[in-house]
Amino acid sequence: MKGISSINDICLLTLEGSGLFGVPGIAARLFGAMAQAGANVVLITQGSSESSITFAVSPTQAALAKKAAEKEFAHELRTGLVEPLKIENNLSVVAIVGEGMRYMPGISGRLFRALGKNGINVVAIAQGSSELNISVVVPAADETKALNAIHEAFFLSDTKTLHLFIVGVGLIGSTLLEQIRRQAPFLREKRGLEIKIAGLSNSRRMIFAEDGIDQENWKTALEQSDEQFSMPRFAEQMEALNLPNAIFLDNTASEEVTHFYERILDASISISTPNKLAASSTYAQYRRLQQVADKRGVLWRYETNVGAGLPIITTLNDLIHSGDRIIRIEGVLSGTLSYIFNNFRAGVRFSDIVKAAQRLGLTEPDPRDDLSGADVRRKLLILARETGLPLETHDIAVEQILPHLCLAVHTVEEFYGELEKHDADFETRRATAAASGQVLRLVAKLEGSQATIGLQAFGPEHPFYFLDGSDNMVAFTTERYRERPLVVRGPGAGAEVTAAGVFAEVIGMGNAMGG
Amino acid sequence: MKGISSINDICLLTLEGSGLFGVPGIAARLFGAMAQAGANVVLITQGSSESSITFAVSPTQAALAKKAAEKEFAHELRTGLVEPLKIENNLSVVAIVGEGMRYMPGISGRLFRALGKNGINVVAIAQGSSELNISVVVPAADETKALNAIHEAFFLSDTKTLHLFIVGVGLIGSTLLEQIRRQAPFLREKRGLEIKIAGLSNSRRMIFAEDGIDQENWKTALEQSDEQFSMPRFAEQMEALNLPNAIFLDNTASEEVTHFYERILDASISISTPNKLAASSTYAQYRRLQQVADKRGVLWRYETNVGAGLPIITTLNDLIHSGDRIIRIEGVLSGTLSYIFNNFRAGVRFSDIVKAAQRLGLTEPDPRDDLSGADVRRKLLILARETGLPLETHDIAVEQILPHLCLAVHTVEEFYGELEKHDADFETRRATAAASGQVLRLVAKLEGSQATIGLQAFGPEHPFYFLDGSDNMVAFTTERYRERPLVVRGPGAGAEVTAAGVFAEVIGMGNAMGG
Repeated sequence: MKGISSINDICLLTLEGSGLFGVPGIAARLFGAMAQAGANVVLITQGSSESSITFAVSPTQAALAKKAAEKEFAHELRTGLVEPLKIENNLSVVAIVGEGMRYMPGISGRLFRALGKNGINVVAIAQGSSELNISVVVPAADETKALNAIHEAFFLSDTKTLHLFIVGVGLIGSTLLEQIRRQAPFLREKRGLEIKIAGLSNSRRMIFAEDGIDQENWKTALEQSDEQFSMPRFAEQMEALNLPNAIFLDNTASEEVTHFYERILDASISISTPNKLAASSTYAQYRRLQQVADKRGVLWRYETNVGAGLPIITTLNDLIHSGDRIIRIEGVLSGTLSYIFNNFRAGVRFSDIVKAAQRLGLTEPDPRDDLSGADVRRKLLILARETGLPLETHDIAVEQILPHLCLAVHTVEEFYGELEKHDADFETRRATAAASGQVLRLVAKLEGSQATIGLQAFGPEHPFYFLDGSDNMVAFTTERYRERPLVVRGPGAGAEVTAAGVFAEVIGMGNAMGG
Repeated sequence: MKGISSINDICLLTLEGSGLFGVPGIAARLFGAMAQAGANVVLITQGSSESSITFAVSPTQAALAKKAAEKEFAHELRTGLVEPLKIENNLSVVAIVGEGMRYMPGISGRLFRALGKNGINVVAIAQGSSELNISVVVPAADETKALNAIHEAFFLSDTKTLHLFIVGVGLIGSTLLEQIRRQAPFLREKRGLEIKIAGLSNSRRMIFAEDGIDQENWKTALEQSDEQFSMPRFAEQMEALNLPNAIFLDNTASEEVTHFYERILDASISISTPNKLAASSTYAQYRRLQQVADKRGVLWRYETNVGAGLPIITTLNDLIHSGDRIIRIEGVLSGTLSYIFNNFRAGVRFSDIVKAAQRLGLTEPDPRDDLSGADVRRKLLILARETGLPLETHDIAVEQILPHLCLAVHTVEEFYGELEKHDADFETRRATAAASGQVLRLVAKLEGSQATIGLQAFGPEHPFYFLDGSDNMVAFTTERYRERPLVVRGPGAGAEVTAAGVFAEVIGMGNAMGG
């Protein structure tokens, strides 16, 4: 590879017709006419089907060339053997120039993959056998994008640039931005990955910068921006910038944002998000997003929807794609509920543990939002769908561990008041389990096509028995791990690991892109 | 996409020279000459650099065409403005024919990626802007391979064929073949993956079948083969068959086989293996194989080298590639040693547990091969290298838990005799640990650049405390999982899960290929 060249603004003329099949001299007549007309032919290509010859001239010569060609083929035009010359405008030629490129299988693969991955239409291709030159005709609007993508695929093959569009700079979003800032030099030098924040927004404002927003001062930059945030305009801007290796990061919990996923994927922009609302919406929508992503050859990923940074969805997909069969998935999928039941021991009142969890900041402002199991249900729904089950939310039975009155009352204080009245009941369940050497865990379970969430007792033969802290744990019992499950365990919540999980996913997606 | 066509045996002629730059009428003169000579031009391509025009004719017309062109450009030839026409033989044109293909970005990417992934040189490319046709000139020897690869990439995009070359049909190999046989219909229908065993060998014989060996009767087929097995000839045959999506599976524990990895990868054939000897050989060789694989765009994978089918190397690589930093890796990496120490409880003699493990078939014929830690050392070496450390075997300190005399004696009986004499010592270590509420585990540990293997005591705060059965367990303590580690646990040995792990890996590699 010696370089990349481009000729912007060219016209493509195509001579087409059944009359061209296997008739010697067509090319001669066509280019003879061009020569006489003094048209300077920049590029020629004719497929082996011989049903068409395409060539490029400068726009100033297009009309002239068309006239000359149609004069030359006037007879065939009348008899319908060839069609009127087709002219296409607003095109550019992008060419890679090198030496001995042909002795590297895959060089054209790299070129066209880079273009395809970035949603660039290839209008025409020409490559002489000298392989000094592969020329690609692309829409003029895509010229810069194409040059960047090619530049990356070849010269920066050890420094690839990812363009991130980040919506939401709350706890997770700002932690992620800090991790990226800290990690950027390492990624650039050790992993050859250049991460640019091309777009950023909070709920009020947004900023865009093709060359990347200053990662040291994004807060100020965002505050000083006078562009009001609106999701429609954010999407328009992403499409308008039309950058290669683009990934949209939704760090919000907003449903409105997820309604733009389809449009974003359709614009050949990948998505990584901790926002569960898309993957846990209707099954129809879940499938549609997967299909659009597949069609565009981009990725829609949401590993952090379950267990934050723990490799749970990835492991599940690896098992499934590798032809293993899932017999049972059991998960403690809430750090809050994990903490509460791991610490529910003899002599401790259930309500006191819930209070302790709240003091530690492990619960939602209203602990009932955790204890209701609504969030765990979303996670189980997503896992079930990854296994291929077309489940909807209402297909998942959730055991309400809270007595009715706890849910009926308004304030958190009233809630605790009610809960204390039932400490005895919880203690009874705990003691009964303990009597047979078991402990209680709130478990999300998928078995066959049955997805349920409820309180279960486990003995030392089950990994859940040994859970502690606020760890998440998922046990996959499969055809291959039938006697003893494959278990993944670790912290499954918190801004650090969640942001890190998104970061990990983004870099993983980056490795899969372009190159 | 409507179809794939090919013209085998064509000649490519290239007119090249500085004299072609921006001179109108060159093409006219060239093809005028062809027309006069009555040469039927099958394909034309000229890059935008205009420094060369390439066209294809049938071999019977090549000499004629060359003569005619050189006559036409006689003057430029004398003055050196153009070079003598270059003729290339033994080429074929492979073309995909379709409609509106240009409105699908990535179609050429898919085409050329499929060719590149399969190591097929692209000699020339032509695609008219009608995009009815993309023509690729390839070496005639690669025509069939190219057709298959393209056919797959487009028509069978939901049925891709993997060609496996399997060496070794011992316990793991034959289990793998059985799993493939059972899983084949499922993979074909549900995963769109057609798995063909293109080559198979035991230590004595080998067979090859481009269309796949009958998976029901491979044993008989192998027995009846009169082809004697030799690794050099097996490699030659793989190269000669030159099949797309080819993966070499080494199910042996042979070092000789690993010496062919470099050659195999260099032939654009991927490798998946449970054989640890390559990844745990010298660091130089480990790096060389990675580099050759990268150069050829193929994969060298060995997930089953550590923890059999458990996602350990994958998880480690995901952490590292995502920019996480490894602080500590602790692993119980031997099912045998896991079983022995998990069952070493008060009132049990150490030697009796070793005997029990042997009765259960968990140990090598000579249990000392497990207790020596040699196998665990290989696994730790591989994990350390995956983190980027250029370690060699001798860099890993292994605590010898067996007294010297146990190693000195010859027979297994004598060994047990010696071991019993030291039951007291083992009991002392166990009791000391137990006194402080801890248990003993034989742990492989990487911390910083220090890799060590030895007996350690763990309390309930550490996941190893809860190990049981013969599970493997790996705890990754990283920048992101600093307070509490990310833990993977499960059965890490046995023919079923090892073969399944290889199978999982092969399908994973398949998903990454071609498409």
